[in-house]
Amino acid sequence: MISNAVKEELRKIAGKDNFFDEIEERICYSYDGTTFKSKPDIVLKPANAQEVSHVLKVANREKIPVVPRGAGTGLSGGSVPIEGGIVLAMNRMKKILSIDEENLVAFVEPGVINEEFQKEVERRGLFYPPDPASQKMCTLGGNIAECAGGPHCLKYGVTRDYVLGLEAVLADGSIINTGGQVMKNVSGYDLTRLLIGSEGTLGVVTKIVLKLLPLPEDRRTILAAFSTMERAAETVSAIIASRLIPATLEFMDGVTVKVVEEFLKIGLPTTADALLLIEVDGKKEAVEIDYEKIMKICKDKGAVELKGARTSGERENLWKARRAVSAALGRICPLKLNEDVVVPRSKLPLLITKVKEICTEFGIKSANYGHAGDGNIHVNILIESRADDEMKKVEPALEKLYKEVVNLGGTISGEHGIGFLKSKYLALGAGVESVNVMRKIKDALDPNNILNPGKIFAVNPSSLSGEEKINSPRPSLTKRGDNSLSKGARKRVRGKE
Amino acid sequence: MISNAVKEELRKIAGKDNFFDEIEERICYSYDGTTFKSKPDIVLKPANAQEVSHVLKVANREKIPVVPRGAGTGLSGGSVPIEGGIVLAMNRMKKILSIDEENLVAFVEPGVINEEFQKEVERRGLFYPPDPASQKMCTLGGNIAECAGGPHCLKYGVTRDYVLGLEAVLADGSIINTGGQVMKNVSGYDLTRLLIGSEGTLGVVTKIVLKLLPLPEDRRTILAAFSTMERAAETVSAIIASRLIPATLEFMDGVTVKVVEEFLKIGLPTTADALLLIEVDGKKEAVEIDYEKIMKICKDKGAVELKGARTSGERENLWKARRAVSAALGRICPLKLNEDVVVPRSKLPLLITKVKEICTEFGIKSANYGHAGDGNIHVNILIESRADDEMKKVEPALEKLYKEVVNLGGTISGEHGIGFLKSKYLALGAGVESVNVMRKIKDALDPNNILNPGKIFAVNPSSLSGEEKINSPRPSLTKRGDNSLSKGARKRVRGKE
Repeated sequence: MISNAVKEELRKIAGKDNFFDEIEERICYSYDGTTFKSKPDIVLKPANAQEVSHVLKVANREKIPVVPRGAGTGLSGGSVPIEGGIVLAMNRMKKILSIDEENLVAFVEPGVINEEFQKEVERRGLFYPPDPASQKMCTLGGNIAECAGGPHCLKYGVTRDYVLGLEAVLADGSIINTGGQVMKNVSGYDLTRLLIGSEGTLGVVTKIVLKLLPLPEDRRTILAAFSTMERAAETVSAIIASRLIPATLEFMDGVTVKVVEEFLKIGLPTTADALLLIEVDGKKEAVEIDYEKIMKICKDKGAVELKGARTSGERENLWKARRAVSAALGRICPLKLNEDVVVPRSKLPLLITKVKEICTEFGIKSANYGHAGDGNIHVNILIESRADDEMKKVEPALEKLYKEVVNLGGTISGEHGIGFLKSKYLALGAGVESVNVMRKIKDALDPNNILNPGKIFAVNPSSLSGEEKINSPRPSLTKRGDNSLSKGARKRVRGKE
Repeated sequence: MISNAVKEELRKIAGKDNFFDEIEERICYSYDGTTFKSKPDIVLKPANAQEVSHVLKVANREKIPVVPRGAGTGLSGGSVPIEGGIVLAMNRMKKILSIDEENLVAFVEPGVINEEFQKEVERRGLFYPPDPASQKMCTLGGNIAECAGGPHCLKYGVTRDYVLGLEAVLADGSIINTGGQVMKNVSGYDLTRLLIGSEGTLGVVTKIVLKLLPLPEDRRTILAAFSTMERAAETVSAIIASRLIPATLEFMDGVTVKVVEEFLKIGLPTTADALLLIEVDGKKEAVEIDYEKIMKICKDKGAVELKGARTSGERENLWKARRAVSAALGRICPLKLNEDVVVPRSKLPLLITKVKEICTEFGIKSANYGHAGDGNIHVNILIESRADDEMKKVEPALEKLYKEVVNLGGTISGEHGIGFLKSKYLALGAGVESVNVMRKIKDALDPNNILNPGKIFAVNPSSLSGEEKINSPRPSLTKRGDNSLSKGARKRVRGKE
């Protein structure tokens, strides 16, 4: 519980219009893109790094949890305040401070929406590639917290590859500047990348320096359907083997295709077992050559349907299916668990086979789609009811999936982060020794554990050894409540559904 | 001093053929590419991570400094054992373990020579871009310790952008695996990038997983001379403004051109005040277009001489001048201090003006060259004698240079690292608060400070505050001894001079 005196102190820092402790506001900031829910005691909307610093000094003195939050679109429970405390809603800090076209560098605040930033730089003939599916809503600060990816990251890399420097506030309220605004920098430890993907557990980002690229001159898109997953996977391998790295190389399995077609009715081949969405970009002349080369590879590998797009209108049409996946799946099933595993791309068919086996074994359904070029597949477990016995099947199925992924040389999260959802499995993915190192860093920088407590690391550290590591307490799926938030309230938080 | 009993213990770990405590061997491992010298007590050549782990356990117990070393080509004193102890020479661990062509990933040991690795992947039509000037000798492990760059890093990024995962041994002897072999990974803190550029102060890298690219189909090179630095800088800006990112965009100032021409006699325009070496790569058709575009920009900006290369032989000729810079400068002057500052590329003419002003003020000479596209310039202070009064001028001149660089929005090291040479200036470049965070991480992971002590951080931490930070004790230039090592002995360590 936070005392009235401390509440008053915090209200003064942010101003009364940016301090909230009414139940309505607390509910609005109690969840993210998962189904986890937990209310904060206070919501604060700081205006600048100084205010964040003051809040953290108070919170550190009083040992109050502080959870930084962007748009709340995260898929691992990262911004859910599971121990209550203060939610720092960073949405007021949403200025694009400057875009330096000569040096291809942008300075932004963390609350800037990813898509708005992309559009702003594109107007200047520039390009910021990371494009998570939530890009219409998610913030650049949130992207940094989770090291967000997206379809373009196959060719262009993830968020970490575009951050040159950060301003961040640490648990003790000190404001640090990491990296800089230049392309090369080896002045001490890489604190920039230590903060990226640290999910708000090490600091609150208050300013971001981003690297930009020239906007590719041209783009061409291909939609190719295959009768078997193996043929689609062979096509992916053949494209890479021909020394081509497309801008995107997206995949949907047969279940996903059917669900999307039912939703959109755009004539997708519902008998196909796998669909690839491939985009090449670059100089006009080079794009034409790559496009023809990939069309030929798809034909040679037996694509049962093949559509090409040259104009931006045609391109938009082909992307419709990929963009509708999440909404289409949400429509047929009240609860889906969006997993985010990665394997070496050549292991993709093996992964899909394993997923099917696991689903059969545990009597559950899945729809799989994602970034085939990266080997980063979103395995969506479709849960048809919230009945306890249905939910109980999922946990051991996921555990088995994670083990298979690690056996295939993969990792348990490519884009979504560990958050609360996968904290129990961190050691499985990263190794017990590495987790120990991470904990030492966390303890050194946040000794009172006020920054986003309960995230990344499992609640019970002592169980993090040997086989036990994956049997340690995990947030029970059955404890995830229904989402009782009204549509209006959700809108206020997320901007849209 | 290390007791005989401990020496015996260490000898047993590495085997008697890989344990050295004779003065000849100790001298061979007493220096790097700077003029610092300090002998280790023992040189050990481990064969694998287990041996490294055993050595570190003993060293940690006995509080003996351990300095990992690749080829000793570093330019910041990073591998010089300034507090004695054990040098871990990693050269025996030099296997390319595997190259996975399907997933574009390579597994290597840290002692692999950069150029040998590049050639091996090129034979398979693949590409590993980071290409420091010392690439014929330097090791991939050393590249990781310093986050090495090179001419290709303008378009392709630095070492950090190509490391997917590491195996490393920490101060307590624990062996950790960071990252993985997949392109995306957000499973806890980014320990991979925390180790990269940490200069051997946090761990000893024993295995490396590298990302590869397809080899560009074609390359074209342009050599352009300008009568003034301003015109060369305008050309750089015009190229980037035309939304082109060449593979390399190298620069030499007039002094450097003259010195190189005297050395090579290849007809360089010695009246030019600035020379640019520009290379474009990619698909044949796109390269042709970029090449013509850049030729036109150079002409429009008034290049006084312009040479293009289409064949690899012609290309090699143009690169000769750039590659000979270091040797040519070494020839005319007994001691040069190779600085490594970075500014936003648009600030390049300002930086060069400042360098000239500083040189005039302190009565010293400089030759400047480097990576214009990155704004990463090697300011070489040419020291004509080791007389005390000559040396004494250099220190305040460098201090002034660093301050100017920071004022211009730059950083004090782009490629060479902080090491011993710049430890006093770390806070100037990174900020006092960030340095405090780095120290906390170092203390948490290496509480006995056995891993490469005296590097990155200034010897006297208490002086690291406010203005005082740049007046704290720094290794005095006058203490750098003559290099008394025989030519034969040097050859044995470095492979070549």
